[in-house]
Amino acid sequence: MNQIKPRTLKGFRDFLPSEAKKRQWLIEKLRSVFESYGFEPLETPALEYAELLKGKYGEEEKLIYEFETKGKDKVALRYDQTVPLCRAITQYQNELVFPFKRYQIQNVWRGENPQKGRYRQFIQCDADIIGSFSPLADAEILKLVLDIYKTLGLSVTIKINDRENFKNLDKRYVTAIDKLEKIGESEVLSEMIDKGMAEGVAKKALSDLAKKPQTEKVKKILSTLKQMGGTMNKIIYEPTLARGLDYYTGMIFETVVKGSSGSLCSGGRFDKLIGQFLGKDIPAVGFGLGFDRTIEVLEENNLIPPQESSSKALVTILDNKDKSLEIYKKLKDENISCELYLNDGDKLEKQLKYADKKSIPYSIIIDGNNIALKDMEKREQENLSLKDIIEIISKT
Amino acid sequence: MNQIKPRTLKGFRDFLPSEAKKRQWLIEKLRSVFESYGFEPLETPALEYAELLKGKYGEEEKLIYEFETKGKDKVALRYDQTVPLCRAITQYQNELVFPFKRYQIQNVWRGENPQKGRYRQFIQCDADIIGSFSPLADAEILKLVLDIYKTLGLSVTIKINDRENFKNLDKRYVTAIDKLEKIGESEVLSEMIDKGMAEGVAKKALSDLAKKPQTEKVKKILSTLKQMGGTMNKIIYEPTLARGLDYYTGMIFETVVKGSSGSLCSGGRFDKLIGQFLGKDIPAVGFGLGFDRTIEVLEENNLIPPQESSSKALVTILDNKDKSLEIYKKLKDENISCELYLNDGDKLEKQLKYADKKSIPYSIIIDGNNIALKDMEKREQENLSLKDIIEIISKT
Repeated sequence: MNQIKPRTLKGFRDFLPSEAKKRQWLIEKLRSVFESYGFEPLETPALEYAELLKGKYGEEEKLIYEFETKGKDKVALRYDQTVPLCRAITQYQNELVFPFKRYQIQNVWRGENPQKGRYRQFIQCDADIIGSFSPLADAEILKLVLDIYKTLGLSVTIKINDRENFKNLDKRYVTAIDKLEKIGESEVLSEMIDKGMAEGVAKKALSDLAKKPQTEKVKKILSTLKQMGGTMNKIIYEPTLARGLDYYTGMIFETVVKGSSGSLCSGGRFDKLIGQFLGKDIPAVGFGLGFDRTIEVLEENNLIPPQESSSKALVTILDNKDKSLEIYKKLKDENISCELYLNDGDKLEKQLKYADKKSIPYSIIIDGNNIALKDMEKREQENLSLKDIIEIISKT
Repeated sequence: MNQIKPRTLKGFRDFLPSEAKKRQWLIEKLRSVFESYGFEPLETPALEYAELLKGKYGEEEKLIYEFETKGKDKVALRYDQTVPLCRAITQYQNELVFPFKRYQIQNVWRGENPQKGRYRQFIQCDADIIGSFSPLADAEILKLVLDIYKTLGLSVTIKINDRENFKNLDKRYVTAIDKLEKIGESEVLSEMIDKGMAEGVAKKALSDLAKKPQTEKVKKILSTLKQMGGTMNKIIYEPTLARGLDYYTGMIFETVVKGSSGSLCSGGRFDKLIGQFLGKDIPAVGFGLGFDRTIEVLEENNLIPPQESSSKALVTILDNKDKSLEIYKKLKDENISCELYLNDGDKLEKQLKYADKKSIPYSIIIDGNNIALKDMEKREQENLSLKDIIEIISKT
């Protein structure tokens, strides 16, 4: 085997056990909330025909990971989960139950310039309702987002708007206004002017926008959300919120957390996107949740519980190997999650260090015919019968 | 948007909710057994430097999905999880706890010629112990495999052998003998003869092999397994079992199930593979479990429980929308997994059909001020107070 420098590609990450466990913890939390609302999992392959993905992402298209297979297929790695969703809806429309409520938690790949918080492979977590034009669906999506962050213990605010507020503005100005929070009003104005709007008109457009009252649609969604039990003081109407993507057709929203810039979770209604595949309108509303961003904010707020060891005890192995194996067998027979130390010959100290490093709460030290239970945190050790040991460990 | 035929690439699959749920069920079962043995998750990226993967898979190398990125990096999709594991061990040797016991459940990609049971993207599920030369580790791997299939309710047999039995045979003959079960003795003999062995020598080699007694190593592993509580009548010593891959250095094994050809799960000891990256010996023993094959056999044996709806009730919505929303809110406040029908305006019949299709056990029918609970399976409906309804649903 050729010796090469072991390294991961720029923008790609390995997740060692402690990190992988945290991520698994978040995935399970998300799944449980999605499923409590009747959302079901959908999975699509990592590779798609490149032609399916192209022409969908505007300027960002250059970030698609695209290549030709040996069989001359032009393929691309999944760039997001919305386009594959549209494909799947079209392909399986007769097998799915509508309104179709699905979630997807999968990796996507983008040729980003790696920098803090920007990766080339990252998990996207999406939930969408397909097949309902009703504000009930919009309200349920908001309620779901509120419940996700309530479950995670994170206090968030949802900014909401209606794309109708931009109906007289060309797409290029919407893209500029989308940057309002990021670059500020004067920068947005110069961009609008650069893009062809007279200064006075641009100023008026922005100030008119800021004064727009809630649209009928927003009013209806929010009153429904209230009836559903949504926490209304977490919702802010923000008429300048734009969301750059041009496929939104109604409600748009972003979820923010105090003291942190950027959005954790955002989405809206897109009634025309799927229809373009199918040749008929299929309404849809949903969101994408930034998995890495959410992990980061949860960590900043100490909201990820310490990931406990799955093993409750380490069975050490010294001179009386038969006894160690016998005790290991008995613990396994009792369905106790535990480990036997697998390098017989190592000193007790090294074996206990293993338990420490893996945060295993107890070690069972077998020395001759003597059995002792060591509480690894308290550093206390006591000679006990196996029966007592099993009772103590089982309660952990 | 250009209208293109919605289709998945050859050899790639979408998983609609019912299928995705089954797969999720199996993943969770596997995780729980792995973790009860102290195995921890590890994740590596989908893409690696192509040079890392090349020169590792022999003839199969042509199946690697390889391409050049726009940044001129030569990259390849993960072909298996063993080579990335070797890379990770080398890269993070100072951060990991040894013996390092990890599992990986991730997709791999291979340019296979798609046919029944052969896919180009499929989940591989691996578990390995790195850093122990002891037969304790070999025995624990076998115990883990037995426990996995016990948990899944599937009766399997593990065939075991020692690569030492082949020590006087050239690699090319081992590859031929590996096909014994698949193509039979006479075919294997002709292949050995084709590869350069005289007929008499080949015959004698095969018959000598078949008569080989258990090696000391196998004896030690099996006696340890017995002490650990392994079900010994599930283990068969098979001195002709070869396992083609040339990196095995000790115990090798395959897991088979009656009435089904091929192996569900196989592995062995590979003490030289990781060391080739690192320049020093690092012992390792483990296995790969065929995820698709296991799902298939479980289905054939009716061992996958019906995937129940996550929703316990559907709240219908007819003329009294406020009442429906009020009841939905109350159920959610009680943390009951439930759904509100999201297309107000649809007839009751259509709403109930939705509950049926999603196997939701109850529908709550709100007609004016009247509330009825409908048991969807029994097709029975009864007017009840919301309090009673909550009590009944909570017990489901």
